[in-house]
Amino acid sequence: MNKEYIISDNWSIIEEEFNPENVKSSESIFSLGNGAMGQRANFEEHYSGPTFQGSYIAGVYYPDKTRVGWWKNGYPEYFAKVLNAPNWIGINVLVNEEQLDLNTCIDVSGFRRELNMKEGWLSRIFTATLQNNIKVEVVAKRFLSLSHDEVGAINYEIKPINSDAKITFQPYLDSGITNEDTNWDDKFWDTLNVSHENHQAFIQAKTMKTDFYTCTFMESQVFINNKSVLIEPNISADASIATFSYEYSVKKGDTYAINKFGGYTVDRNYPKSELVSIAKKALKEVTKLGFNALLEKQKKAWSKIWEMSDITIEGDVKAQQGIRFNIFQLNQTYLGKDSRLNIGPKGFTGEKYGGSTYWDTEAYCIPFYMATKSQNVARSLLKYRYNHLEKAIENAQKLGFKNGAALYPMVTMNGEECHNEWEITFEEIHRNGAIAFAIFNYYRYTGDYSYIPEMGLEVLIGIARFWHQRATFSVEKNQYVILGVTGPNEYENNINNNWYTNYLAKWCIDYAIENIEIIKESYSEDYSRISGKTKITHEELHAWKKVADNMYFPYSKKHKIFLQQDGFLDKELITVADLPKTDRPINQKWSWDRILRSPYIKQADVLQGFYFFEDQFSSEELKRHFDFYEPFTVHESSLSPCVHSIQAAKLDQMDQAYTFYLRTSRLDLDDYNKEVEEGLHITSMAGTWMSIVEGFGGMRIKNDTLNFEPRIPKQWKAYSFKVNFRDQIVKVNVSQNETTFKLEGQNDLDIIVNNNQVTISPNNLVKV
Amino acid sequence: MNKEYIISDNWSIIEEEFNPENVKSSESIFSLGNGAMGQRANFEEHYSGPTFQGSYIAGVYYPDKTRVGWWKNGYPEYFAKVLNAPNWIGINVLVNEEQLDLNTCIDVSGFRRELNMKEGWLSRIFTATLQNNIKVEVVAKRFLSLSHDEVGAINYEIKPINSDAKITFQPYLDSGITNEDTNWDDKFWDTLNVSHENHQAFIQAKTMKTDFYTCTFMESQVFINNKSVLIEPNISADASIATFSYEYSVKKGDTYAINKFGGYTVDRNYPKSELVSIAKKALKEVTKLGFNALLEKQKKAWSKIWEMSDITIEGDVKAQQGIRFNIFQLNQTYLGKDSRLNIGPKGFTGEKYGGSTYWDTEAYCIPFYMATKSQNVARSLLKYRYNHLEKAIENAQKLGFKNGAALYPMVTMNGEECHNEWEITFEEIHRNGAIAFAIFNYYRYTGDYSYIPEMGLEVLIGIARFWHQRATFSVEKNQYVILGVTGPNEYENNINNNWYTNYLAKWCIDYAIENIEIIKESYSEDYSRISGKTKITHEELHAWKKVADNMYFPYSKKHKIFLQQDGFLDKELITVADLPKTDRPINQKWSWDRILRSPYIKQADVLQGFYFFEDQFSSEELKRHFDFYEPFTVHESSLSPCVHSIQAAKLDQMDQAYTFYLRTSRLDLDDYNKEVEEGLHITSMAGTWMSIVEGFGGMRIKNDTLNFEPRIPKQWKAYSFKVNFRDQIVKVNVSQNETTFKLEGQNDLDIIVNNNQVTISPNNLVKV
Repeated sequence: MNKEYIISDNWSIIEEEFNPENVKSSESIFSLGNGAMGQRANFEEHYSGPTFQGSYIAGVYYPDKTRVGWWKNGYPEYFAKVLNAPNWIGINVLVNEEQLDLNTCIDVSGFRRELNMKEGWLSRIFTATLQNNIKVEVVAKRFLSLSHDEVGAINYEIKPINSDAKITFQPYLDSGITNEDTNWDDKFWDTLNVSHENHQAFIQAKTMKTDFYTCTFMESQVFINNKSVLIEPNISADASIATFSYEYSVKKGDTYAINKFGGYTVDRNYPKSELVSIAKKALKEVTKLGFNALLEKQKKAWSKIWEMSDITIEGDVKAQQGIRFNIFQLNQTYLGKDSRLNIGPKGFTGEKYGGSTYWDTEAYCIPFYMATKSQNVARSLLKYRYNHLEKAIENAQKLGFKNGAALYPMVTMNGEECHNEWEITFEEIHRNGAIAFAIFNYYRYTGDYSYIPEMGLEVLIGIARFWHQRATFSVEKNQYVILGVTGPNEYENNINNNWYTNYLAKWCIDYAIENIEIIKESYSEDYSRISGKTKITHEELHAWKKVADNMYFPYSKKHKIFLQQDGFLDKELITVADLPKTDRPINQKWSWDRILRSPYIKQADVLQGFYFFEDQFSSEELKRHFDFYEPFTVHESSLSPCVHSIQAAKLDQMDQAYTFYLRTSRLDLDDYNKEVEEGLHITSMAGTWMSIVEGFGGMRIKNDTLNFEPRIPKQWKAYSFKVNFRDQIVKVNVSQNETTFKLEGQNDLDIIVNNNQVTISPNNLVKV
Repeated sequence: MNKEYIISDNWSIIEEEFNPENVKSSESIFSLGNGAMGQRANFEEHYSGPTFQGSYIAGVYYPDKTRVGWWKNGYPEYFAKVLNAPNWIGINVLVNEEQLDLNTCIDVSGFRRELNMKEGWLSRIFTATLQNNIKVEVVAKRFLSLSHDEVGAINYEIKPINSDAKITFQPYLDSGITNEDTNWDDKFWDTLNVSHENHQAFIQAKTMKTDFYTCTFMESQVFINNKSVLIEPNISADASIATFSYEYSVKKGDTYAINKFGGYTVDRNYPKSELVSIAKKALKEVTKLGFNALLEKQKKAWSKIWEMSDITIEGDVKAQQGIRFNIFQLNQTYLGKDSRLNIGPKGFTGEKYGGSTYWDTEAYCIPFYMATKSQNVARSLLKYRYNHLEKAIENAQKLGFKNGAALYPMVTMNGEECHNEWEITFEEIHRNGAIAFAIFNYYRYTGDYSYIPEMGLEVLIGIARFWHQRATFSVEKNQYVILGVTGPNEYENNINNNWYTNYLAKWCIDYAIENIEIIKESYSEDYSRISGKTKITHEELHAWKKVADNMYFPYSKKHKIFLQQDGFLDKELITVADLPKTDRPINQKWSWDRILRSPYIKQADVLQGFYFFEDQFSSEELKRHFDFYEPFTVHESSLSPCVHSIQAAKLDQMDQAYTFYLRTSRLDLDDYNKEVEEGLHITSMAGTWMSIVEGFGGMRIKNDTLNFEPRIPKQWKAYSFKVNFRDQIVKVNVSQNETTFKLEGQNDLDIIVNNNQVTISPNNLVKV
């Protein structure tokens, strides 16, 4: 582990030392978000040390012109970058004209930062001695409001403790910001207007190329010893910055405070011409409430989220803190209110990867949102892909596919592919299967079939067409093969017959045909609409079926395992345990060719298939494959440990399951991959949730019924979680001795626990 | 074919129409070079239409910071770019103050451009009417001197034919030039000093980062009706341009002319401080001679080159023009005078590809230089690689290899790798084998074994070590495999067991061991030096041998062919003939994944191996492999048709051989690949030479003896070529009826013709 400075606590993330080396990591870990916007935990006051500034607005991106060494046909023209948005959190603080800057202070003590996950706020306290020897105590708190999601609020208090001091708060807005990640040093924002009125300021700016119009706004109030004081601010405004200066001669021991409200209005939600007036309206509402009342609303909103989604773990504070951190960050990133949005791999915590939507959403995030929110949230996520179907068809056309074949993009903001690395963009096509699997998974979990005739079937047809065309008939094998792919294990490129991809392709075709038949039979109106639109024919289905029925799967008779791909056994099969530690992580130490010809697996690949389709394999088969592949797995993808934790639990290999659980849940808190300063791994956090609910809890849906096979790590006294299953809530509590089930709902529910049927009734605790 | 405007001629390349659309193509085709410098055929006078300006100095390059989309460990930090050098050929021409510019003239007629390959000069004549209605006749001639290789000369004559006119010649030097190909718009040149003295000007400039110091210089003389006139020029000099204005009121019908001498002195050859004085000395020499006498020397020098290297073809002007163009351009690019230089794939004709040295040199160019120059030239090229051995070892270390394993770079200027595309840089490792093969080929041809104990063995050891470490023992196959490579066919990436690569690897090890044994036995002093340096042990050789003796070669029993790589037969085997024409060239029409999973072959791969090692396969085997692979070959590499021409001739498939010959010899003249405007394909021109000498002529060296199996395309009456074989020159003349051999040398020579021994004696024509 790289860093272990986060203090263990059940409900908070806490840092108790000011260490400049940790600033960028903490900026990631203590990030705030409310689904509509988010920001890294940058200091309000100026900081001249190494820092990574980041504020982000959901759905606002920039199409950065693609940069490659060697252009390949089919590459997209641009890469959609998450965009550092105008800064509204900044408050410069002058103490007798000297800028408060923790990087230049003579002394900083009593530094404490807390991200209170229960209530959804971030605080920071410290005592600092400036170079002018004035010693001040600072207490700052901020949050991004869930109840008013265009607004965030900051309360910043400063107390000179060894002298009177003239203190100036300079709250500002700044649209002259840049991205760290930029291909050509383009200017991303065009500031249209900087204006101010009384204690409010507004910067209207639009993104270059994409023309997202935004208004960034602020309003401030100042206080002495908690009493509002009216200070006429000195105002300066230039082309991209508006600064208000509130100067006050503060007596030693008195507390000078500022409440700053700020945020964004965006033209995704309102007409461009109304962005300022909507901002004013929002400011009016929140200033009327005031900081404390708004904070109370925040606590209530988070309480409601936790009521449904909390997982408790007794007897293991690190594990408890880990899972809550994951659940907290997921809820900060995406709340399912807007089907035009999705879940970026770094959420609102960094710029890396760009785009907002990967197959992570379908493979890892949907189960979490299905179980902890209303089913509309998962439906929204599915609808997002339905809305992008035409773009997916265009994307496939660019690669030579025809007749409505759809290839969903590797990375996207608006449905268009915006990734450019041939071995991924063109070849990591298994992503297409995850889109289909999510439809299956949604119906399996919610029982809501209506999505399929309404929207899903068209998606399934486009995907089946892709797989049919992408398979090649091998005369040599007299079977269909899939050549030149990259599987989930991205440490193999351009391989033939990746077992996971071939299996998923066959399944997608079979599942599409199955649903075409159901809808033809039972939803004739939908069927005639869809068949009219897609021009699907009997002959075409027959051709698909031929591919699905004759798909080739690489297999070793000797080892009785499916091979990750053709030729896997030609590799030098040295396990990870026998690799020198100095060679790890291999993606930082080895050249790419060496990684490729090694047997090392970045993340679950064959095992990912066993996870998706576990009913189709016996436990013996799972064990054989787990025991064969896990020793070669380096887990250098954030998406790897969760699946392995689930599989290990299923195999009753609880020590392994627990180790993988800690790794997935504390990946960012303990910075396993030495990169947390770039941002958090948001999508894998849903995998952490799965590793408890599906892994230890053993939750599955079979035949419209909840199944559990609860297990508990020996390190824990007990753990509990809740799932929303078809509008009834089941609370599960697992201890070393027993498991209890409690139903919050109206109707009796039959569930299966360790293969036995159990009936649970509303508000009646059942022990097993 | 894209363009077919070049007039057929035995000795000249001729263009007879001014077509702005052809300007950039002609700038490539009519390029000049003298081994030390070169330039595209840019007009002397200003041209405002589309043009690609290029002047180049041998060995002067710029390390352009690498640009990639996604960084991989092991990528080099920079890509060595061929550098557009300061311009010395420019002469602005003002006619009554109006700039002569073919792009803006009212009328251009009688345009004729000629590249006289026999004598080594470029001329251009035209009549133009300017916008001011003055009509002028222009005759311009220029050449880059072989006898004084720092200097070029221009004679530019203008005659106003419908009016008197005030005409100004403005010869200039310009170091404010840029590259078209630049990753980050860096400034490549730093001008240090601009100076002038009488009729001479000098610009001292150095390249950024690499610090190559150069002096670009010029001196001009003007004439009226061939009589020198003394005009005091108006001189202007700024930070990077020096311009002299020679104004004269020219009477209608009189000829105003300028002779301009210019060129470069470089610090590779002289101390930095002497570049200007050496330039002055060179100018003194050539101005003393004058344009015409210098041109006479040029003709003589080219006559000498042609005497040895000419190939004549009777009855097919296009074929004749093609081969001479290839031989001419090769000699313009590299003359073997300097072992620090090498043969860039675009020579001095464009910027593309960067770097100067590819495996092309060893695989394609060395045979040409061995047979048409003294053997020292080929030895120089081998020494170039010996000098880079330490860098090749470092290059291998960067990829994780140890113990002196050497991997020669894909592209280099100074021995360091400067290519960055993982599937090529890290995986197209067969290039290493070509370096070893060239050593074998050199000894086979010249009989000069001394290179091996002196230098070559160390290279062979480094290469053998690389192959030994790069092979993987497959428990599954109980043989050694080579995983994750790109073969000569770059339309396959990261494949396993490329037959060509595996075969070459085994051969390299065997050949290294064979030579270690010879040198141990017969060159004990060299052996103790080399073994001391390389620490080679008996155990190590044993380990190598195990790999070589147990190398796996993919093979199809059904087809009785070696497979290009594992899994080749899984592809959909549709021949190129059945591909829609609209899909060609596939590298411009298809996405990369589609190319990769197709069976289409960019250039000879298995057949390249059969070419290198033909004695190890029967003609039946060759025919089987040729007939299997050629139909899938798209020849989208310039290096493909020549090898196929040779193989087709060997198989007596003369129509095919002839078609491939035309394609290789007129690749640029007829712009088969639609890219000639970027520059010429210099290295493949040596392949053209091979397709006549080795293909039609059937020349081979076996057991220190020249072998011939002459064939002649039915389209030709006769053809002839000369080869320098071990300091005796054999002239071969092949007609439809007979072949004659003539020896220019001292001693009788036994040769083999169609498997019969023939003795040829000095100056005695032998008919067969």
